[in-house]
Amino acid sequence: MTTDTIQLSKSPVTGKEYEIPAIKDDKAGIDAFVALHPGKKVVVVQGLGFVGSVMGLVVANALTEEYAVIGIDLPTPASYWKIRSINEGVFPVIASDPKIEIYYQNALKKNNYYATYDSHAYSKADVVVVDINLDVQKRSAKNKDLEGYNVDLTPFKKAIEAIGANCKEDVLVLVETTVPPGTAQKIVRPIMEEMLEKRGLATDKLKVGHSYERVMPGPKYIDSIQNFYRVFAGTDEKSADAVEEFLRTVIKTDEYPLTRLGNTNATEMAKVLENSFRAMNIAFMVEWSRFAEEAGVDIYEVVNAIRMRPTHKNIMLPGLGVGGYCLTKDPLLASWARMNLFGSEEKLGQSEKGVHINDKMPVYAFEYLQSQYNGPLEGKKVLLLGVSYLNDVGDTRYTPVEGFYDQLLEEGCEITLHDPHVKYWEEKDIWVNQDMGELLNSDYDVVVITTGHKDYRNNEDLLNKLVSKPSAFMYDTIGVWSKDEIKTLGEKHIVKVLGRGDL
Amino acid sequence: MTTDTIQLSKSPVTGKEYEIPAIKDDKAGIDAFVALHPGKKVVVVQGLGFVGSVMGLVVANALTEEYAVIGIDLPTPASYWKIRSINEGVFPVIASDPKIEIYYQNALKKNNYYATYDSHAYSKADVVVVDINLDVQKRSAKNKDLEGYNVDLTPFKKAIEAIGANCKEDVLVLVETTVPPGTAQKIVRPIMEEMLEKRGLATDKLKVGHSYERVMPGPKYIDSIQNFYRVFAGTDEKSADAVEEFLRTVIKTDEYPLTRLGNTNATEMAKVLENSFRAMNIAFMVEWSRFAEEAGVDIYEVVNAIRMRPTHKNIMLPGLGVGGYCLTKDPLLASWARMNLFGSEEKLGQSEKGVHINDKMPVYAFEYLQSQYNGPLEGKKVLLLGVSYLNDVGDTRYTPVEGFYDQLLEEGCEITLHDPHVKYWEEKDIWVNQDMGELLNSDYDVVVITTGHKDYRNNEDLLNKLVSKPSAFMYDTIGVWSKDEIKTLGEKHIVKVLGRGDL
Repeated sequence: MTTDTIQLSKSPVTGKEYEIPAIKDDKAGIDAFVALHPGKKVVVVQGLGFVGSVMGLVVANALTEEYAVIGIDLPTPASYWKIRSINEGVFPVIASDPKIEIYYQNALKKNNYYATYDSHAYSKADVVVVDINLDVQKRSAKNKDLEGYNVDLTPFKKAIEAIGANCKEDVLVLVETTVPPGTAQKIVRPIMEEMLEKRGLATDKLKVGHSYERVMPGPKYIDSIQNFYRVFAGTDEKSADAVEEFLRTVIKTDEYPLTRLGNTNATEMAKVLENSFRAMNIAFMVEWSRFAEEAGVDIYEVVNAIRMRPTHKNIMLPGLGVGGYCLTKDPLLASWARMNLFGSEEKLGQSEKGVHINDKMPVYAFEYLQSQYNGPLEGKKVLLLGVSYLNDVGDTRYTPVEGFYDQLLEEGCEITLHDPHVKYWEEKDIWVNQDMGELLNSDYDVVVITTGHKDYRNNEDLLNKLVSKPSAFMYDTIGVWSKDEIKTLGEKHIVKVLGRGDL
Repeated sequence: MTTDTIQLSKSPVTGKEYEIPAIKDDKAGIDAFVALHPGKKVVVVQGLGFVGSVMGLVVANALTEEYAVIGIDLPTPASYWKIRSINEGVFPVIASDPKIEIYYQNALKKNNYYATYDSHAYSKADVVVVDINLDVQKRSAKNKDLEGYNVDLTPFKKAIEAIGANCKEDVLVLVETTVPPGTAQKIVRPIMEEMLEKRGLATDKLKVGHSYERVMPGPKYIDSIQNFYRVFAGTDEKSADAVEEFLRTVIKTDEYPLTRLGNTNATEMAKVLENSFRAMNIAFMVEWSRFAEEAGVDIYEVVNAIRMRPTHKNIMLPGLGVGGYCLTKDPLLASWARMNLFGSEEKLGQSEKGVHINDKMPVYAFEYLQSQYNGPLEGKKVLLLGVSYLNDVGDTRYTPVEGFYDQLLEEGCEITLHDPHVKYWEEKDIWVNQDMGELLNSDYDVVVITTGHKDYRNNEDLLNKLVSKPSAFMYDTIGVWSKDEIKTLGEKHIVKVLGRGDL
């Protein structure tokens, strides 16, 4: 074997690089692991991403049953390190939730969480939990106008085929992936039955269900799986019963009762509807923020007044944009399913429009900067405070900061990044500074709040340091600065807040 | 005077008819009333509709001050009877809130609530509370497509001019009407100053403010004014202070703190934003209800599952449509203001679209009936349960039942109406049956739930009566029937529920 055929997979957690094995065979490892746990049910979690790796942890720490858990992912540069990391004693997700480490140490002690890439694992499974990604391919213009999108089910179907090619005939396949409504019934179940038939196995013992997770990476990561309301359904009664039985062993259902819906179309729809609702509510505020700026109104003040009404507590605030893995694509998944899986001639037009509007927010935020900044931005030193898409977590997937950053770059700005939760910005392949003190030894022409981290809110030390700097343009795209802070900053700097009009 | 010049105004409450006086002079009445209350501040409430008449009552029962209250409205057939009714001891609003009668009897005892049509009242006023309507004129196609709309400020401006032509120079004008953002600052204040100048009076003592009510006609009518959060602002500091001082005397501000915003544009925007938020959230569910029907999903079940999440409690349920005075027009008021008072080239497109979608809901509900009903609807006997736009109140303003009713009528149906809260459907000039027992002596081809009144929910007696009828088509547009009830009805009838798919 020559060196140029060796593929490497690097852990962003430890920096360690792993060689991906040329021969993909882990049967011995899997068999040895299962042999350690005689009589225990085997749960295979498919996908070791933000959801799957932690779901595996929760199942390994189930409440009322002892499971042997196998996490499975692909032996690719992007994923292979996760497999090795889990088996070597380093959990592959950095999170502020202390429970992650407690649960992981506990699993290590019990040696009941193994990771592999080998589909042989499915042959041992009593339950397969599907936690792989199902992506939407967006086509967007340079100005972020959404021009179209596509849902390619091929990788998802292949993953289901891998289960069907290896599993026992009475396996429970529990899909947790956010899928187009109709997927469990119209795609997963038919593939599984076809594969079983090909193998000469019965199809009447198969169980296929859907239950969606509501995982929030962050300080309550584990609780967002274990201590939270779950909605589930089966492709038939037997499947629903099996899902219920399994979920009762891992989730605190006495405090967070399960909700069983009539069919899997309903649970699949609930998930994308819930995210579309949120995406649409954010999109709704975009126009109103612009109107507020035009009318010299502080939209934050207005929204806070409206939130006094219990019926209006959930009205959203504006910001730099919408990011993350769900809100940016789920409305499109749903609209696609309506037309492609249920043959409707109508899309979910309003929900698609919401995605479109949200995608454009970073463009607007940049244009606002351009319109307010005195002179060209070319060559200016810009400090961006925040890279992740959500406050107080280190998740950069589809962060709106990217669109904003790209435009600054294109304009010829010299950009410095800070984020207390992001060491490495994977999508951009950039290392992010985490030491604010060091950063503030330099001077900047423009300082922008791009994520609403706690570290930037009510931080007197940060405020004092910013005030002590030479006159600059301060731009808050999130609304973290209070009126008093704006006043203090404004004595020395120019301060603009998106959605606050002229203050 | 010949009889054909006599104009009559008929009370829908008592049925009594009043002659509108040919000579519009009530100076003596006003002076006599004010003379009864020496040393008391005079509050004039302009407009005796759903808000003004009850606001007058609340001010007459103020918490920490004794006011002499004068309600003023126009001597027109639609309004004159309200004036007479208040002065004759019959409150002009039918409401299920027992506090209304208690407050009214108390005002009668103190004799501190007088009603008139004569602008002379403004000359006595320390405070004028503006509670008149400001309407949007919609142009809609026959299929309810919103083709355009217009905001005509003329009547509103005339009402303000009437105040300016008569008032004291230090009057406080408190606008409570839902107005296009910008109105207090750009319209009310300039008109008032111009009128004062014309009269040779000073303009620097004038106070103009805005505070929006959140009145809900129904069982908590009074509380929705007196025991609820208020948002207010002034056109200047002095005005804001004066509004605050006044509101503190009538609202329980210790339990429901006041929120003071930076300017009247902000309070005016807050009101229309709050209603647009709600209208948009309803519109959002329209598409998803259709999708649920296509996918055989019960949207009610899905929404209830989503509502388990505290952050998603406010997701709306679908229904026959959106009615009432606010949600059907406020997004348009805002969009109009953005373009016409603040010169923006962009409308609030999404919010306008929400109104458009909501306006079409009764059309969809009718088309669904047509598609599900076996055969033509012509000549069929149809019973509509509910006429008002909201459950448990008797408010028919812009009720979506109207659009549904019109289509049935056009189709040649023989329609019977029931509503426990509506005696007389003013907009249609129809008397409504309130005796369900009597109605159910007849048989119907189609029975439709058109309003979600309590009387139609979990009503075993009603259910039994419906079950005992000959086979019919039962159509629930609101989702009041539970699964068990649907099952029971379904043994004899065909039952369809909007948004529930095939059950």
